[in-house]
Amino acid sequence: MHVVMTSAGIGRIEDGAVAVLDAPYPDPNTVIETTGSLDALGGAKVVRRIPLDGDELDLRAPLGRPRALWGVGLNYHSKAERTGRPAPDEPVLYLAGSSSVSAPGAAVRLPAEETVQMDYEAEIAVVIGRTLDRAAESEAWSAVAAITAANDMTARDVMKRTGTPALAKSFPGFTPLGASLLARDAIADPDAIGVRSWVGDERRQDSSSADMIFAIPELLARISRYAALRPGDVVLTGTPAGTGQDRDDFLRPGDTVRIEVDGVLPLTTHVRA
Amino acid sequence: MHVVMTSAGIGRIEDGAVAVLDAPYPDPNTVIETTGSLDALGGAKVVRRIPLDGDELDLRAPLGRPRALWGVGLNYHSKAERTGRPAPDEPVLYLAGSSSVSAPGAAVRLPAEETVQMDYEAEIAVVIGRTLDRAAESEAWSAVAAITAANDMTARDVMKRTGTPALAKSFPGFTPLGASLLARDAIADPDAIGVRSWVGDERRQDSSSADMIFAIPELLARISRYAALRPGDVVLTGTPAGTGQDRDDFLRPGDTVRIEVDGVLPLTTHVRA
Repeated sequence: MHVVMTSAGIGRIEDGAVAVLDAPYPDPNTVIETTGSLDALGGAKVVRRIPLDGDELDLRAPLGRPRALWGVGLNYHSKAERTGRPAPDEPVLYLAGSSSVSAPGAAVRLPAEETVQMDYEAEIAVVIGRTLDRAAESEAWSAVAAITAANDMTARDVMKRTGTPALAKSFPGFTPLGASLLARDAIADPDAIGVRSWVGDERRQDSSSADMIFAIPELLARISRYAALRPGDVVLTGTPAGTGQDRDDFLRPGDTVRIEVDGVLPLTTHVRA
Repeated sequence: MHVVMTSAGIGRIEDGAVAVLDAPYPDPNTVIETTGSLDALGGAKVVRRIPLDGDELDLRAPLGRPRALWGVGLNYHSKAERTGRPAPDEPVLYLAGSSSVSAPGAAVRLPAEETVQMDYEAEIAVVIGRTLDRAAESEAWSAVAAITAANDMTARDVMKRTGTPALAKSFPGFTPLGASLLARDAIADPDAIGVRSWVGDERRQDSSSADMIFAIPELLARISRYAALRPGDVVLTGTPAGTGQDRDDFLRPGDTVRIEVDGVLPLTTHVRA
């Protein structure tokens, strides 16, 4: 199943259109929080159809505001090589503030009073469907409800100054999530999910989960040693080489960033002053 | 207003009893998330009364699972003096995972596979009622909906090993919150709120917000420079001297910890193997 949130309600993507559903939930994250998967949307009645490529489609944040937003630093071999740091023995985990989540197409303000180094990070985001508490790696992937694209935006200078990802990554709008949710059972191989970014017309990142230092199931199992992952919680799984940090070139008002994750609608964000 | 969550529903404390209310909300945090304060409970119809001191009262988590759980390290002068560290120039902020929230009276497991230094921290918890986004200190206190007591439990050895509060403080049950919510307008002076802890019969911490390095309004304003605080978000405001860390004596299965914050029902937590 492939799901979006629109101004007209929750929709399923099918036959090149969005089938808007009669479903008793405010957003898809609430479906996952309360039922553990997106399956409940499979039988929902279709109210109307909106073409995927027309102006009529008004996409909203598919995950609302999650109750946990975990992330991991330095989780791609390419990124470790680019920064000259060794691959870590344990994942470098953090929590970002979920009040930073923004919708597909959002215009996000560059908080100039705190940063001159606003950066993008293309990431595969995983939405938890079933609780993982001290879980084995072997059971972790089946507890995932869906994936989506994330732009884990980071104020590099704030990170350097405070050493605190929760501060560098939680500015309003700094976590675009979407544009659609792809259910786990539609993903052939969790170790071969492509992830890419563009700033304007220029491709900046191009990798896949095959290059991860800690693969998605291991990452989830590791987090669950410290904190229970609950239905609706979101885990950002790290970014490959090619961020602004890697080229000393940061985002400016007027820039448009596009993140692509295989099978998911592109996630576009505009930077404004 | 003074509010609790019970197995029979949301209640107001009045005349030494809990007045269970006919209110269309799952818990008080949802009242705050959707209305900005607890005021909507003032006019709710009373369904029944339960004595405060009887066996019939079954208290539940008044805040459910918040969407943000901010904390601050080293925010009491007494704690800075005890540890021999200078008072910080900027608050040492972190996010804990809200899946760690537990209810009044909960039995919390000592996660022995990860820690032998499970510690308590008595804290005043603040529940946000109105969004604070780059807010001035002068407007911060009026945006608070309520306060409660928190036990910001911490695995000291995990903190030392990982340097990551999100990992040391997010184990299941590690953030008892409650037992009641005291509305802001019932608090005479935010700079004189007493906070104490006991382990068994022994008093371990005894202080008040007067000893804070960053007073509550300044703390909220500082967080809001980096992340928007939204209705229902919870901020833990630091712990005074007297934790297990300060005496090299940690919690063991069978221990009972009690946290008291002025005006709020005591918050009791049991430690189990």
